[in-house]
Formats: sequence, structure tokens, C-alpha cells
Amino acid sequence: MIGIFDSGVGGLTIVKEIFKYLPGYQIIYFGDTARLPYGTKGENFVKKYSEKITDWLLRKNAKIIVIACNTSSAWASDSLKKKFSPTPIFEMINPAVAEALATTKNKKIGIIGTPGTIKSGVYQKKLLKADSNLKVFSQPCALLVPLVEEGMLDDKITIEVIKKYIEPLKDKGIDTLILGCTHYPLLKDIIEKTIDSGIKVINPAESLAKEVKIYLENNSVIDKKIKRGNVHKFFFSDEPYNLAKISHFCFSKKINPIVKDPFNV
Amino acid sequence: MIGIFDSGVGGLTIVKEIFKYLPGYQIIYFGDTARLPYGTKGENFVKKYSEKITDWLLRKNAKIIVIACNTSSAWASDSLKKKFSPTPIFEMINPAVAEALATTKNKKIGIIGTPGTIKSGVYQKKLLKADSNLKVFSQPCALLVPLVEEGMLDDKITIEVIKKYIEPLKDKGIDTLILGCTHYPLLKDIIEKTIDSGIKVINPAESLAKEVKIYLENNSVIDKKIKRGNVHKFFFSDEPYNLAKISHFCFSKKINPIVKDPFNV
Repeated sequence: MIGIFDSGVGGLTIVKEIFKYLPGYQIIYFGDTARLPYGTKGENFVKKYSEKITDWLLRKNAKIIVIACNTSSAWASDSLKKKFSPTPIFEMINPAVAEALATTKNKKIGIIGTPGTIKSGVYQKKLLKADSNLKVFSQPCALLVPLVEEGMLDDKITIEVIKKYIEPLKDKGIDTLILGCTHYPLLKDIIEKTIDSGIKVINPAESLAKEVKIYLENNSVIDKKIKRGNVHKFFFSDEPYNLAKISHFCFSKKINPIVKDPFNV
Repeated sequence: MIGIFDSGVGGLTIVKEIFKYLPGYQIIYFGDTARLPYGTKGENFVKKYSEKITDWLLRKNAKIIVIACNTSSAWASDSLKKKFSPTPIFEMINPAVAEALATTKNKKIGIIGTPGTIKSGVYQKKLLKADSNLKVFSQPCALLVPLVEEGMLDDKITIEVIKKYIEPLKDKGIDTLILGCTHYPLLKDIIEKTIDSGIKVINPAESLAKEVKIYLENNSVIDKKIKRGNVHKFFFSDEPYNLAKISHFCFSKKINPIVKDPFNV
């Protein structure tokens, strides 16, 4: 199985892309809803629970791990790779950064994310490390996650909020925009329609799924270990908010969550 | 000192009312920003941290405790009163319920709150327990806290969101509306302007402050123990988001937060 984890339901947008690029591969998902959001927690806290979850997924027979959470990708991916070596561990940030670099022509890149992700500067730092000539502009968007979780994907209020957040980035002349939050891929269509310009929108969930697919094509030993089938499992450490809506948006159907906290505090 | 705690910055709206009704009383505030939001956490978790915080405030010389958090009021106030007896402990829900009961004429009461508070049913149950002939209508409003934290108190987007949430309650014919979330008092003016009708809006922060004032007027032994002065202390277990904006809205000035987590996990 492919083990995938996030602090909540946002990581289901990564599952959606995994299903698209790797159809037929079984997945096991863990959303740490009891402790969300990770973006406002300390680094040690996020590392500790990322380790606990990875260990738990491996014991559940996952053969590779996909970190479907920006905060955990930023803070825990290095230590997870070291601790659980040689298990292949994938994170969200590097594939999106690589795709943004390959996409931009005028070297002006925008990033939107939760206040926590933007404040951490993770995308900004990785982009500038890869190319110090870039101009990187970021915008925290505290309202977008609640709008997605309210199911207001195509609402006039959402359009107004997107305009408010993205106009300043457009004014800077960006030609590439990274959706730096797992919920935002569900807004990709309305964002593209609202900004109405040549700006290319990078969906890190898709960049990541493509990377996993290429990896498995080149590593047949591991590829063969991953179970195939359509029996996927979705665990959450606490009742997820509006799961029905989010899973409908991602998969056009309901999923059956298994709610239990294996790390009960 | 008066010890006041919340899961984050929302409790500052209660501090605002305490300053108004009990000017000159020193307060010590604790916002558990490292573990917010409480509304999506389990009952045992909220009880455990409410106890830890109460104990910590008492050791910091608080003589009475004000629970400035709806979730903790619902789940932890009974156990705190028992455990820390005879320390006077005040919570948010009963004073607001009493005021709503005294206000309504047609016995139709609306409640708005976070999805967590509404789902817990705490206001609904207490109202119906007090008067089973009431008609109680509730509406979860996931977008209002982020709108307040973005500082969009007087934005056309906020007006649209308020309309969307409150129209269904107006259609039910309510004559009284409880603001069941600590952030919402900052939206009281715009809510009253937007609903534009005879609906009376109950601010639980104000109901609570009035109750504390009456208690202290009738309990001079405890009243005398509480320090007077203008040196207030504001502790947060992690960096609070947009504190400058929220404190400006509450007090028309900045407050200096002391950021440290006494219960480091």
C-alpha cells in the first residue's frame, strides 16, 4: 500500500492525484484531525507526530510514505527519511518548487498558503536557494481553507476573497502561482477563472503524484511490493469536519472514515 | 488578580468587558495558542488542559477564574469548580442563556457559533432545559473567526457572509440571537447593521462580565483579595496570530504578549 498522511482532510487532494496517476494502487490514509492544524504548532510537535504516524502506517503495511501536508513536509521530511531509511518518503515542497522553476519565464513566482505556511517561508526559501535571481512574492490566505470546508467552491463570496488575495500578486507581475496549501487544488478552477490572465497555476499535489509515478516506474522492486486493488482505507484521529463534502469534491463519492486515535494523549 | 483563559485570542473580548464592568481590577490572561482550537478536540483533552491552566493561573496569584472559552465552559467548568473549590469559577454559557431567556418575547432564539460549539449543542441544551417551550435554531459559521482574524470587521465580504449565515435564522422568526463564539462580539455592530431588524443580539462576554461584577459586589472577602492596578499580563503558549489587530479592536491599543508554553508536550 501507499501510506499517505496529513493533519486533516486536505491531503485527500493528494490522494485524488495519486488515484489519477497511479490507478489501481492501494492506499492507506491517516488524517491527524485530533491535533490539527499543524501549521500553528511547534516544529518538535510536528516532527514527533509525523514520526508516530509514519511508524503506524508502515506497521499497517505501507511500503512507501507520502507526506500530504505542507508543514510536515517542511519540518519532518528530512528526519523521517533518515529515521525510516530505506523506505521511500515523498514530500510536497520540492516537486512543486521544481515545477515552478521549470514553468516561470519572467522569474516572478507567487505563493499562496495558510498564514502558518507562508510565515514558515518554506517555499520562498527553497525557490531562492534553487535560483537566487527569482523574485518571490507570497500571500497568506486565512479564509481559503474555511471557504473550501464550507463547500463554497463556486460562490461569489469566494471569488471576492480570491480577488482580494491575488490582485496584489498580479500587480507584482508574477507569471507562476504555487497553491501552497493542500485545500487549494479544489479552488484551482475558480482561481484560474478569477485571475483571468496568463498566470500558470502550479498544483503541488499533481507535481508530487507525478514524482511518485516516475519513482515507481524506475524502482520495480518497490513497485512490486505495493498492493494493487480498490480497497482503500481512510483513518482519522478525530471526527473530520465536512468530510462528505471534501471527499465528494475529490472523488465524486463518499468515503467511509475509520475514526480512532492511535496516539491518544 | 482575575485569571482568564481561552484557547487563543478570542477571550480578549471577555477581557474587554471585564475592563468595562470592573475597571481597575488586575487581570492575568492565558491563551492556549499551542493547542488551539479546543472546539475540535476531545472532551478529555479540553478538561485536562483547562485544569492545568487553572492550576497555573492560581499559582500566579489569580483569586477568581473566568473561563473565556465556549468549549472549555461546556466541558470543563463543572470539574474545575469541583477540583478547585472554593475558588469562584465563572463560565460563559449560563449567563448568556439567562440573558437570552430574559430577552426573548416570542420564545424563538437563534445561536451562531463555530461548527464545534454548534455541534456540541451546549447552548441549545441549556436553553431547552430552562424552558422546554422555546424554539431554538442554530447555525454553524465557520468563516466568521477567520474573517475577524483577518481584521475584516467592516468589509463587504463579511457583510455577504453574515447575510448568508443569518438569513435562515431570520426566516425562522427569531427575536433573540446569541453570539456563541468569543470572536463574534467584534462583529456585533456589523451583525446588527446587516440583519437590520428588531432582533436583540446577546453578547455572552458582556453577560459574563456583569455576572462577575454582581458576584464581587456581594462577596467582599474575595473582592478585597483581588489586586487593583493597570499592570495586566497576557500569556500565550505559542505566538498568537494577528494579536496586534485583535487587541487593537478590543482595547484600541497593542498589548505585549508573553509567549511561553508552561505545559510543553
